[in-house]
Amino acid sequence: MNQPAAFPLTRELASWASTLRSEDLPPPVQRETLRAFLNWFGCVLGGSGEEVTRRAAKVAVRASGQASLIGHGQRAEIADAAFVNCVASSALAYDDTHLATVTHPTGPVAAALVATAEARPIGGAEFLTALAAGIEVQCRLSNLLLLPPAKPNLALYITGVTGPIGAAAAIARVRGLDEDQLRWAIGHAATQAAGFRATHGSMAGLVVPAYAARSGVFSADLAAAGIDCSDDALEAGRGFVGVFTSGADLAGATAGLGRDFELMANVYKPYPAGIVLHAAIDACLALLPEVGAAETIAEIRMTVPPLTLALADRLHPRTPFEAPISLQHWAAHVFCRRAAGIEALQQPQIDDPAIAAVRERVRIITNESLARDAAAAEVVFNDGRRVSRSIAHATGSIAKPMTDAQLDAKFIRQAELVLAPDHAAGLLARLRGLDTVSDVGAALASWLGVQRHS
Amino acid sequence: MNQPAAFPLTRELASWASTLRSEDLPPPVQRETLRAFLNWFGCVLGGSGEEVTRRAAKVAVRASGQASLIGHGQRAEIADAAFVNCVASSALAYDDTHLATVTHPTGPVAAALVATAEARPIGGAEFLTALAAGIEVQCRLSNLLLLPPAKPNLALYITGVTGPIGAAAAIARVRGLDEDQLRWAIGHAATQAAGFRATHGSMAGLVVPAYAARSGVFSADLAAAGIDCSDDALEAGRGFVGVFTSGADLAGATAGLGRDFELMANVYKPYPAGIVLHAAIDACLALLPEVGAAETIAEIRMTVPPLTLALADRLHPRTPFEAPISLQHWAAHVFCRRAAGIEALQQPQIDDPAIAAVRERVRIITNESLARDAAAAEVVFNDGRRVSRSIAHATGSIAKPMTDAQLDAKFIRQAELVLAPDHAAGLLARLRGLDTVSDVGAALASWLGVQRHS
Repeated sequence: MNQPAAFPLTRELASWASTLRSEDLPPPVQRETLRAFLNWFGCVLGGSGEEVTRRAAKVAVRASGQASLIGHGQRAEIADAAFVNCVASSALAYDDTHLATVTHPTGPVAAALVATAEARPIGGAEFLTALAAGIEVQCRLSNLLLLPPAKPNLALYITGVTGPIGAAAAIARVRGLDEDQLRWAIGHAATQAAGFRATHGSMAGLVVPAYAARSGVFSADLAAAGIDCSDDALEAGRGFVGVFTSGADLAGATAGLGRDFELMANVYKPYPAGIVLHAAIDACLALLPEVGAAETIAEIRMTVPPLTLALADRLHPRTPFEAPISLQHWAAHVFCRRAAGIEALQQPQIDDPAIAAVRERVRIITNESLARDAAAAEVVFNDGRRVSRSIAHATGSIAKPMTDAQLDAKFIRQAELVLAPDHAAGLLARLRGLDTVSDVGAALASWLGVQRHS
Repeated sequence: MNQPAAFPLTRELASWASTLRSEDLPPPVQRETLRAFLNWFGCVLGGSGEEVTRRAAKVAVRASGQASLIGHGQRAEIADAAFVNCVASSALAYDDTHLATVTHPTGPVAAALVATAEARPIGGAEFLTALAAGIEVQCRLSNLLLLPPAKPNLALYITGVTGPIGAAAAIARVRGLDEDQLRWAIGHAATQAAGFRATHGSMAGLVVPAYAARSGVFSADLAAAGIDCSDDALEAGRGFVGVFTSGADLAGATAGLGRDFELMANVYKPYPAGIVLHAAIDACLALLPEVGAAETIAEIRMTVPPLTLALADRLHPRTPFEAPISLQHWAAHVFCRRAAGIEALQQPQIDDPAIAAVRERVRIITNESLARDAAAAEVVFNDGRRVSRSIAHATGSIAKPMTDAQLDAKFIRQAELVLAPDHAAGLLARLRGLDTVSDVGAALASWLGVQRHS
């Protein structure tokens, strides 16, 4: 028998997620929830045509399904559609990041919500409130497992571990389950918390967050059918925290709940690259006006924090799964193609001998005093001239968040992979009013219309 | 980037599971595989009508599904049918146990196989070989995580952790995936390894092994669709072993692979009770000829190993999920009802005031020198007389395995909950020849025919 834990974390989180009202969310949190959703939806469109998404779709597609594979115009069961749409949203490594824990929070929760919204009417305000609640539960549990006083397990792929729980809470809520059932759904999802970092660099790395979306939907299904779960699933010594960490401060996980929102510490990527590379890419882009043809470059000296070297020192990436986390590739791509968009992850650019030649000229220097969102680039020309630029805070950092205009441009670039330009712009305008629609699923279906990969 | 691990465990297990032939299995292992399957199939029939199974079926049922909910005559998608049938097989806590690790190995693998066999022809010999391979992979990984030199995490619900991997290996095999794909399937399943013991005592405790079956099917689906996984998913420091344990002996996990089979250390329960209670129940049953009406009993003194007290000291269980692990309930039930079958887990017996009154008379004494499969019972009568019996090895222990006749009787008792008596006996006879059928799915459908819960 399990010893009762001192702090009823499962009950506290379930109670909050169950009773939260739209008007309880401060206006900045409401705005940020919509920004998170817009960013996510654009990433789904952008990643919907990627090979990994097409393969996931093969597994999921069912003519009789209740939900859609976005960008494909095909149908699937709700949990499987959530899976595929979440794969799509991370296929370009372009989704959002809760920086303190490197959780990608919106994917599992939003994917579960969108698929669920196709099978039952959910109002826009409730949809966004459930999204905010799910993200909050998820990110607070990520903090619990990974931040002091917890002793973090570095093997954890945290989006897979806490994502199912956030998604389950959101889905239980929009399905109108009662507080007991929402708590059971959290418990079922906690038993499915899973994923490790050794999958990074393979397609499986994109599948782990998607499993979280799928498990969240299924956990709410189980709770809705009356399958109960022990009430202390999260905090029990032989429960969720007991599997994944030690020394965690259970009560700390609810401190300021409803007042302080982790969503405000969530950021969006300007580049489809590992988050540790963004300042470096900013620095290269800032140098472009002073740099001509790549052939004139003798060396590119990138000064980065040690973590960037540890995670992204990949001289010649071979696949679209390795390219996002190659500092050499991004620096070379910027100076060869004069851009840092999703084309950098396509196989022709990865295999381009001209880009590969410039990668060889990248030298990485670490500086321990640099913050994680800082970097510098120096270009040494063949004639000995040098130009350099330092970035104190990367675009898309907490200190320098992406503006609405930047998010809109990012959305449009990705949406135009799937929709005609007018259609993409119209969709964006409508999504900005999502909070006022009466039936999110019906609205999305009508706004999306025919999609390119159909 | 992950450091390459010294021992390529993922490759070694995948290669073995992929290339194993039916004739490579020694005859005793072939026989034991069939016994494991018969025991499991009986448990599915026995548990198919339980409330938790009915609720799981509600979630899964789809008229267009390719697989069956056994006992219900309803259909579901393959992964979901595997889920429900696995819930059924553990609903009475009557399934098998790999004693060294308390893994319940057959459930996830067999449930995944049966559902898969409905959608494609699989011969009986291949079906049983895949079952043996999946169980072997699963149990060896359980040993890896839980036995010395590993430092075990007591929170782990090990069937949920290693079950997906065994199921994935078996399904990849019967689907004819190549060795690379089988290895990817193992990797995907490893990322879904999950579950903790704090769910015991709630319906969620029955759901965790069932998730394993479902994840195994889905992981093979992903691999079949060409979604790859890093090749060192199991052994990487930031992989499967890195999440769940430390100090594990990776190479030890394949020592004697193909020669020594963990299936031979798997046992079947004569009673639907926690495995730690079986010797105690044996002792009570052995006393029955010397004990008359329960009213004549003043005290029941149960002498058990300390682990039995730690896990099964529950004076008054309230639900069918608590009753299997109540020493007091089982002792009282044996002396009140003169039997130790599945009726002991039904609510009328749990709530029976006469049984409850006898529970109050149970006194538990621990003896550290008793082996886990030993116990003694002493009945003190109102008139001061005493009778006692000691059990050195419980029925269903390694030293005293259930005989084929006992397994048959267990099967028939459960099958008759779903099928007419003639039908149950005929099914058993046919299942004993499963290795010779050419299409397991077609055979099972024909043999099962109309089922009671339809």
